[in-house]
Amino acid sequence: MRATVMFGAGDVRIENVPDARLVEPTDAVVRVSRAAICGSDLWPYATLERSETSRRMGHEAIGVVEAVGADVRTMNVGDLVVMPFAFSDGTCIFCHEGLQTSCVHGGFFGTPDVDGAQAEAVRVPQADGTLFVLPVGEDDALMPSLLTLTDVMGTGHHAAVTAEVGPGKTVAVVGDGAVGLCGVIAARRLGAERIIILGRHPDRIALAREFGATDVVSKRGEEAMERVRELTDGFGVHSVLECVGLEQSTLTAIAIARPGGAVGRVGVPQDETMPASLPAFYNNVTVGGGPAPVRAYIEELLSDVLEGRIEPGRVFDRVVGIEGVPDGYRAMNDREAIKVMVQP
Amino acid sequence: MRATVMFGAGDVRIENVPDARLVEPTDAVVRVSRAAICGSDLWPYATLERSETSRRMGHEAIGVVEAVGADVRTMNVGDLVVMPFAFSDGTCIFCHEGLQTSCVHGGFFGTPDVDGAQAEAVRVPQADGTLFVLPVGEDDALMPSLLTLTDVMGTGHHAAVTAEVGPGKTVAVVGDGAVGLCGVIAARRLGAERIIILGRHPDRIALAREFGATDVVSKRGEEAMERVRELTDGFGVHSVLECVGLEQSTLTAIAIARPGGAVGRVGVPQDETMPASLPAFYNNVTVGGGPAPVRAYIEELLSDVLEGRIEPGRVFDRVVGIEGVPDGYRAMNDREAIKVMVQP
Repeated sequence: MRATVMFGAGDVRIENVPDARLVEPTDAVVRVSRAAICGSDLWPYATLERSETSRRMGHEAIGVVEAVGADVRTMNVGDLVVMPFAFSDGTCIFCHEGLQTSCVHGGFFGTPDVDGAQAEAVRVPQADGTLFVLPVGEDDALMPSLLTLTDVMGTGHHAAVTAEVGPGKTVAVVGDGAVGLCGVIAARRLGAERIIILGRHPDRIALAREFGATDVVSKRGEEAMERVRELTDGFGVHSVLECVGLEQSTLTAIAIARPGGAVGRVGVPQDETMPASLPAFYNNVTVGGGPAPVRAYIEELLSDVLEGRIEPGRVFDRVVGIEGVPDGYRAMNDREAIKVMVQP
Repeated sequence: MRATVMFGAGDVRIENVPDARLVEPTDAVVRVSRAAICGSDLWPYATLERSETSRRMGHEAIGVVEAVGADVRTMNVGDLVVMPFAFSDGTCIFCHEGLQTSCVHGGFFGTPDVDGAQAEAVRVPQADGTLFVLPVGEDDALMPSLLTLTDVMGTGHHAAVTAEVGPGKTVAVVGDGAVGLCGVIAARRLGAERIIILGRHPDRIALAREFGATDVVSKRGEEAMERVRELTDGFGVHSVLECVGLEQSTLTAIAIARPGGAVGRVGVPQDETMPASLPAFYNNVTVGGGPAPVRAYIEELLSDVLEGRIEPGRVFDRVVGIEGVPDGYRAMNDREAIKVMVQP
């Protein structure tokens, strides 16, 4: 089958690889109907050192179950399923608590142990715990929005939840990538009164406004902090969704939280330390977040997608076939595309 | 009057200073019945650079109102009052939210603007918002425990609240100083099932056990983290109270939190950055806390003190007169005393 392989920074190729197959009795094999390229894929695309072991990419997919292991109970061949970016057994203490990204038998797609989903098919470990069977067919017009439930919409929602967004609150979203845009949707959905997006790309900002952003701050660093304070009577915002992961964005996120506010981090941190310990401390700002347990959020978000109340699929502004994936990476890296959908 | 003045690291003296007096119509002057030396006073005691401006020390006191400004409404001369370590107007947006340490007209005692309370008397700004009138007299046997409501008991409680301690949870308290010991009291009071204290001083550990600690970890660094994991099925604890503020203790606090757990920081951070951004992120550990709004907690904790359900005053293991304050600093710095009470 054809699959996406990264050999080093900037070097993504579509290769012939062995067909995905069952390994464990808890596995399923899923033929990929839709996959996606993630903002987090751009980190290795910028920095991956060339090594003997190449990396099989992709961790977001919707597809049709082609085979199930002997122990799989909750799905059948032919079911259309959502595949979250992390696999999880659904039965451990952390899965029961809704933190599937810390599952004791879990892990992530596109790693040395488990191949990626930017491919014609993918092996899914812990299929019962991981996959969510959809009530629609693979030709559904809502497919792009359903695909966001594998990562970006669930991640934006997690940022909003950990940032303690609620009715009447003032919220800032740091970053106008697909996750930030979904963060705007999530903040509005949870009742935020005012949503300030920090970003600089006119096309993304326009979409953010359609999703519910009420204010835009296009400056960076100190100027951005100053502008957010001006917009909030000098106090800062109740909730900050950090959707980038860089040192500067984290610093900004903490600095624009009002005393007693909360920052929800979902941008993968690129640094070992967290800046600005002191402002966080003196302002009693809570910093939470991490890899989103999107599996826990699918059911809640699904009904809003199916009933058209939210349209996170609008973050996809380009569609490629499997052979077009390398150019999709380039387009996202060059900020030509917000997010690329893959139709193998 | 006599008051405590720090001139530089290790140099604390009792000096004659002008009597405390009303400056603003919202002020009160309080004759100090009891004051205390705080663990946080030991930071400048170790590091303060000698300068032209010496520092008037002390931020914990119970005393008798001697004079009130024209705008003070809620107390009378002769009332016995608790003075939290921060002053606050009681009317601003943050005071209404219970975060008096971020009061827009607030501040801290023992700073260039407002003198300290290790003295015969102290000027209290924003008296109505700051002071809490006690229903007992100054000869009350509970005075030591009441005195902890000015800082350490409220701060331990804040650590527990921000670490999300609740019934049935497993809790770790990092640090066996007075705040850590009060953190043990707070964790037990909030229903923790298991309380692991990390500390090395036998006298303090003994007191921690009496306060409700169920396990003791006396190692440091990696060994401490390993031991806590052993005690918790390899997962770590739900709630961590960080009561030190050093880089190593913060690193430990984050590392011993289980996935989805929470760290409440009340030790004043000695670093600009927070270590261990990555473990906090990948484990979805929330890091909260800051200067405790002890004013908000007095009423809730007071009844437990008055009815003898908690005895935080036991952290005081030495009493000095005003002239004995410099030796009190020395004793706490040498770990001869846990916490020193001052009876001017």
